[in-house]
Amino acid sequence: MANDGTVDNMVLELRRGVIVLAVLNQLQEEQYGYSVLKLMSDHGLDVDQGTLYPLLRRLEGQGLLESSWRVEEARPRRYYRISAAGRVLLPRLKDEWKRIVSTMENIL
Amino acid sequence: MANDGTVDNMVLELRRGVIVLAVLNQLQEEQYGYSVLKLMSDHGLDVDQGTLYPLLRRLEGQGLLESSWRVEEARPRRYYRISAAGRVLLPRLKDEWKRIVSTMENIL
Repeated sequence: MANDGTVDNMVLELRRGVIVLAVLNQLQEEQYGYSVLKLMSDHGLDVDQGTLYPLLRRLEGQGLLESSWRVEEARPRRYYRISAAGRVLLPRLKDEWKRIVSTMENIL
Repeated sequence: MANDGTVDNMVLELRRGVIVLAVLNQLQEEQYGYSVLKLMSDHGLDVDQGTLYPLLRRLEGQGLLESSWRVEEARPRRYYRISAAGRVLLPRLKDEWKRIVSTMENIL
């Protein structure tokens, strides 16, 4: 029997792929983790730190983001920005996203 | 460095959540596996058997689908349809999907 955990998981699954696309898109301008969270939340996409920070590291490990430490307001922050490889990927993901959205309009 | 495997994975991740929604929606009318594949493909959402059949069994295990065997054209086929619990879930997933689509329109 489906319980709330099942439903939550499905909603998370719906969001998961989208978050990668949103993050790559946001990081066309360099930002630090918390400001990415804030921007996405301002746009209505709530992502928690436990999801975002590992994702940023994973995307950097995949060569899609670059990062550097900077000291501002007395404490160091890791700034992220999209890499050259990420810039190649982003339009492909956007196209795929548009295709999915229009397909789902057909289906639903 | 991102290779084609990474890109393919991201595209799969984008599609994964959507496939559940599409399947539940299609199975408001009873169908067998292959006809679900065919319908989704006709709408532009290509899903392979290795993805769909385990998903149908998983959704049935979660109580969101029901199934029964029927013998037609000499060989038995398992027909699937949405369950009462699935009917409760479907509009929630659709709403979440609409929210995600409009959020991504904001962000992109």
